[in-house]
Amino acid sequence: MVTRLSISTDSREQLVDVTGQVQEVLRTSGVDSGVVTLFVPHTTAAVTINEKADPSVVADLLKGLSEIIPHRAAYYRHVEGNSDAHIKASLLGSALQVLAENGELVLGTWQGIYFCEFDGPRSRKLWVKITPD
Amino acid sequence: MVTRLSISTDSREQLVDVTGQVQEVLRTSGVDSGVVTLFVPHTTAAVTINEKADPSVVADLLKGLSEIIPHRAAYYRHVEGNSDAHIKASLLGSALQVLAENGELVLGTWQGIYFCEFDGPRSRKLWVKITPD
Amino acid sequence: MVTRLSISTDSREQLVDVTGQVQEVLRTSGVDSGVVTLFVPHTTAAVTINEKADPSVVADLLKGLSEIIPHRAAYYRHVEGNSDAHIKASLLGSALQVLAENGELVLGTWQGIYFCEFDGPRSRKLWVKITPD
Repeated sequence: MVTRLSISTDSREQLVDVTGQVQEVLRTSGVDSGVVTLFVPHTTAAVTINEKADPSVVADLLKGLSEIIPHRAAYYRHVEGNSDAHIKASLLGSALQVLAENGELVLGTWQGIYFCEFDGPRSRKLWVKITPD
Repeated sequence: MVTRLSISTDSREQLVDVTGQVQEVLRTSGVDSGVVTLFVPHTTAAVTINEKADPSVVADLLKGLSEIIPHRAAYYRHVEGNSDAHIKASLLGSALQVLAENGELVLGTWQGIYFCEFDGPRSRKLWVKITPD
Repeated sequence: MVTRLSISTDSREQLVDVTGQVQEVLRTSGVDSGVVTLFVPHTTAAVTINEKADPSVVADLLKGLSEIIPHRAAYYRHVEGNSDAHIKASLLGSALQVLAENGELVLGTWQGIYFCEFDGPRSRKLWVKITPD
């Protein structure tokens, strides 16, 4: 079964910590151990793991990506003006796996799971699929 | 079982929409729901998800990647002259997961699955593995 | 069950070929076929697949990433001075899937699995989870 989480973003670019929501899906499923697959059904958003302790890390991540991939560039041909968001989506990726043990997500000490908005604000979805052992 | 799809590319850089071929593997398998793992067994190619509706999006993606990672750079030491293709392969990734429900791939409205050629033209493979629920 | 491999890095940026270690985990598990999920529990390291034959490829990959994401940049706000490592970690990714058949990892001819250190030297972990068919 695929659980469809709703995420609301409120700026053009934003990293939303969804670790708690994903953990809640795992808890509700009753699954003890397995693999959790996260999937973003959008082409201008992504999912990644990075530091949850210091918010300046995710701010630097967004800024760093925008330094590499400018919002406006003479070579973009896509008329919607969001080619940068599409490129960032492919760079960070639409799918991610996290492991589960003893009914809990197992993550490193500093890790959080982030939904990555690159063309908001929008109402978004994050799909969660649990494959039990 | 791993299904090995054949893909033929006809330029150095090209995104090939393989959504239909992957869906066909799923249909043939008879699997109703589960996780589909896609794997690219090459080091100068990748797999990604992005918009399928407007072809200018994938054109901008290829152009954007080439702006970041130039084909020729003074610091490349690899003598084959395709270091850019190797770097892009790691940036977009060799593996991807897609979900299946009711015998169909479940993707967002605008999403297509793309085999990413960065050092063609070549005969390539895309491996498809289905993990049923 | 999650197997936790130990990896010791000896420079700030380094790609460590872990193909043999991952293969050994698979062999020890006795699993014949399935999906192997690799997970890096750190926010300044990643896992990727690239060429194992010519070491200049991974050298160019590290150099190419550092050209895109400089170690020092005026816009970094994170005070630890390793924002570049965090950004590279998200670009290459924390998780990766590899397929197994007949008790062996199935990889392309030139492919090796690399643990990517971006803020070493450190003692690191790579988690390996096998999902049998």
